[in-house]
Amino acid sequence: MSNTEKKSTWKHRLHEIIYEADTREGKLFDVILLVAILASILLVMLESIVSFDDKYHQFLNISEWIITILFSIEYILRIISIHKPYKYIFSFYGIIDLLSTLPKYLSLIFIGSHHLAALRALRLLRVFRILKLARYIGASDRLLLALRSSRAKIAVFLFFVIIVCIILGTVMYMIEGEENGFTNIPVSVYWAIVTMTTVGYGDIAPHTPLGQLIASLIMILGYAIIAIPTGIVSSEMTKTIKEVDTNTQACPTCLKDNHKKGAIFCYNCGNTLN
Amino acid sequence: MSNTEKKSTWKHRLHEIIYEADTREGKLFDVILLVAILASILLVMLESIVSFDDKYHQFLNISEWIITILFSIEYILRIISIHKPYKYIFSFYGIIDLLSTLPKYLSLIFIGSHHLAALRALRLLRVFRILKLARYIGASDRLLLALRSSRAKIAVFLFFVIIVCIILGTVMYMIEGEENGFTNIPVSVYWAIVTMTTVGYGDIAPHTPLGQLIASLIMILGYAIIAIPTGIVSSEMTKTIKEVDTNTQACPTCLKDNHKKGAIFCYNCGNTLN
Amino acid sequence: MSNTEKKSTWKHRLHEIIYEADTREGKLFDVILLVAILASILLVMLESIVSFDDKYHQFLNISEWIITILFSIEYILRIISIHKPYKYIFSFYGIIDLLSTLPKYLSLIFIGSHHLAALRALRLLRVFRILKLARYIGASDRLLLALRSSRAKIAVFLFFVIIVCIILGTVMYMIEGEENGFTNIPVSVYWAIVTMTTVGYGDIAPHTPLGQLIASLIMILGYAIIAIPTGIVSSEMTKTIKEVDTNTQACPTCLKDNHKKGAIFCYNCGNTLN
Amino acid sequence: MSNTEKKSTWKHRLHEIIYEADTREGKLFDVILLVAILASILLVMLESIVSFDDKYHQFLNISEWIITILFSIEYILRIISIHKPYKYIFSFYGIIDLLSTLPKYLSLIFIGSHHLAALRALRLLRVFRILKLARYIGASDRLLLALRSSRAKIAVFLFFVIIVCIILGTVMYMIEGEENGFTNIPVSVYWAIVTMTTVGYGDIAPHTPLGQLIASLIMILGYAIIAIPTGIVSSEMTKTIKEVDTNTQACPTCLKDNHKKGAIFCYNCGNTLN
Repeated sequence: MSNTEKKSTWKHRLHEIIYEADTREGKLFDVILLVAILASILLVMLESIVSFDDKYHQFLNISEWIITILFSIEYILRIISIHKPYKYIFSFYGIIDLLSTLPKYLSLIFIGSHHLAALRALRLLRVFRILKLARYIGASDRLLLALRSSRAKIAVFLFFVIIVCIILGTVMYMIEGEENGFTNIPVSVYWAIVTMTTVGYGDIAPHTPLGQLIASLIMILGYAIIAIPTGIVSSEMTKTIKEVDTNTQACPTCLKDNHKKGAIFCYNCGNTLN
Repeated sequence: MSNTEKKSTWKHRLHEIIYEADTREGKLFDVILLVAILASILLVMLESIVSFDDKYHQFLNISEWIITILFSIEYILRIISIHKPYKYIFSFYGIIDLLSTLPKYLSLIFIGSHHLAALRALRLLRVFRILKLARYIGASDRLLLALRSSRAKIAVFLFFVIIVCIILGTVMYMIEGEENGFTNIPVSVYWAIVTMTTVGYGDIAPHTPLGQLIASLIMILGYAIIAIPTGIVSSEMTKTIKEVDTNTQACPTCLKDNHKKGAIFCYNCGNTLN
Repeated sequence: MSNTEKKSTWKHRLHEIIYEADTREGKLFDVILLVAILASILLVMLESIVSFDDKYHQFLNISEWIITILFSIEYILRIISIHKPYKYIFSFYGIIDLLSTLPKYLSLIFIGSHHLAALRALRLLRVFRILKLARYIGASDRLLLALRSSRAKIAVFLFFVIIVCIILGTVMYMIEGEENGFTNIPVSVYWAIVTMTTVGYGDIAPHTPLGQLIASLIMILGYAIIAIPTGIVSSEMTKTIKEVDTNTQACPTCLKDNHKKGAIFCYNCGNTLN
Repeated sequence: MSNTEKKSTWKHRLHEIIYEADTREGKLFDVILLVAILASILLVMLESIVSFDDKYHQFLNISEWIITILFSIEYILRIISIHKPYKYIFSFYGIIDLLSTLPKYLSLIFIGSHHLAALRALRLLRVFRILKLARYIGASDRLLLALRSSRAKIAVFLFFVIIVCIILGTVMYMIEGEENGFTNIPVSVYWAIVTMTTVGYGDIAPHTPLGQLIASLIMILGYAIIAIPTGIVSSEMTKTIKEVDTNTQACPTCLKDNHKKGAIFCYNCGNTLN
């Protein structure tokens, strides 16, 4: 065995452990990774609690550094063990992995930036891979499919909601005025969004009768139009499920697919399907 | 009649009364049980009202003990009268029944644990059995079926919501900071959940313009993504209803499918279905 | 023309004006009635505004009495002009009409009961009749049909929500305690309902970390399970619309109906449909 | 080339630039317009922030006047360059364009009216035209179609919600009274709407046990009936999508219908469709 072959085998083995979850070592690696991610998120959270940080600052800081270095090593190993490193670096997970390690290093320069380490939460999405739940992936794929095909409609809807909020926010600013908490138009638009989406903090609330009347209209409007995105996604998902009811075979003569389940003849060329 | 037979008959009779609701005695037993459950929940609630408890402490305490002892006797009878006691003990209702009696006894040792008696509310689920509403059970079965088949998608959705809340909560902590009520990351994540789910208590609310802008985005996001679980359940239920209403067989003559349940002749060619 | 006939004609004419909206007089009567109802609701509202009532008390009181007497006369006329008075008296509208006049008379005996006159709002439902919008009535009929057939499922759902709120309310009472506003179990259950339904007043809000964690779970639960009633009604309405897709003809041979639109043969007896 | 022809050509060219987005100049015009609209909305918002207006009042005022004059010129050019000016003037965009310029002129007479300039937000709807996203327009058309056909049902629903809020608001006014913030019936109705729509500001909240019980019922009612508009729109959209995806013709040989749009052969018997 030549030296190059050896190296290649070593790389191949590393790739198997890091990128795949079929072998015992690969699975173990993924489980340890997930535990480390969860631990690191917990660390960031605990560090932000002043009373906790005062007591255990040293411990939290060291743990943070250990995890950051481990993640950095993992990131470098991922780049080394893959055939085309740029493919990983510019992939969704590649960018997240980088963003997960950077904040701690940046905190040496910029104070406060280490909180960005919470971006590590995105790494938790890996859980789907390790659990090897084809069912879950399928579910999320179908969800994404339905969302993608209803993207245009939802964009139109959100655009409409924002325009309505800008106009109603301005109207409320003119009616209620600064003395009732509607200090300026941006704040009033913020209030309109809080109301329209039925969140309703109550930090700003109308006090004049006319303001309350218009607020009531906004609420009823918001209550009614929540039906729209829901209707969009519902109908898209019903459609997606129905499409699963069409079979996946293609016509052997004209190659058209998307036949109804149980169809015997191609709807395009009229020849029998097998 | 031998002694064993007598005992067996006696057990059998007890089983009929306690576990079934077909006989007059069985029905009466179930009605009394439900009234006792309702009364015991009311007792726990009244006991927690200080002004009420001060006046009627003695009465409430004694009533509580009477109901607890009655429930304990019922629990023992249920174990005695069944053929395979462990089947009941480890069943859903068996565990609830035990949890319903334990808190009062525990209150002799741990002060305050008697409030757990509110777990008795779960016993109210028995109401479905006594009412013998096949229709209601059917309804709840179909609901459960739709929920079960959309479980995977809803899990993916909730997982996504929690990850988004962790990230947005951290971002808001960095923007708003302690002086605006976002005292630490866990509290900020709690705020993000309050906002995303459109609950909006208002105990914590953004005050900086940038914070309000991001809060607006979270609200609109939450307003839009509530469409997702709704869409999932809607499409699943539409599917479930459809599956219940048509059978899966195809006409042996013209091969048309999607026949109504109970159809004997093909609606297309008029030949008999098998 | 005999006296009896005259009386009958007179009664018939009154019936036409009051109960029907086809003639010009009938329509006019209904429009005047609706205006009177709206005016009376406005009166009740204005009366409740202290600053307004102080100024115009005399005017409001007299107007109230005039409208009440007019409604009473209308009620008596309705009873006189109908063939079987008890049919009207115990009908939905008959009871509402009575409840709309009673409060003012009762206010002579019980102070404050005149506010119940707001029940007159229910009389506004008459608007559908006068507008003769068959389309609207059809819409509301189909809505009611979908709601009626999903009644059982929604009952199961609400029952489940209430049980969950009782249990979680009790748990929160034990965690948060009186010092955080959860003064007793009924108040905590009220809080759980406020949270679960995503209303979120914020008058009571958790302050302990554990309480906020459980509150987050309740919110996410509430956010997810709102999908259930929505899913139920959506699928029922989709079904109702689909049923409109079946044609209304019955098989001439076996009298079975509910055939698919475009079916040529009866799915039950196999004979041709006309 | 005669003078009339020249003028006509000049007008034609202007029309192409202003009303169409196919040429390079037309596109450029639309992009500049959109940027100007966004800038003008930003100006109105910034002007309303006191601290900002104090510093840059002169700059904001001049910018406002420049944009208003530009919009006025654009409005006049639109009228000049079109064949039938009244068609534009009374169109949806014509009215909005006028309303977008008027407020600033009115502010010379009425102080405060310049805030109405926020109506310019409606001009943003032009974004759909410039982006030439047939897909988005199609999406919004289908949305509008589904909304239009569910208009009657949603009107019935909102009417019902308002009647319920009037009655429940009055009941709560009688139970809670002025000392708990329910100062009069209109305010109580406002509270009922805030609660029913799950907005829940918390500026007014029930304090008596009976009030909290009824509030709980309103919340659960509001939580359940949000399913109705959602169900309406969902089923309408499912219907709309279905209608778009299958054609209405039946196979002339086997009479099977529900063919895919664009199908040439029957999927059941293989004969040609007409």
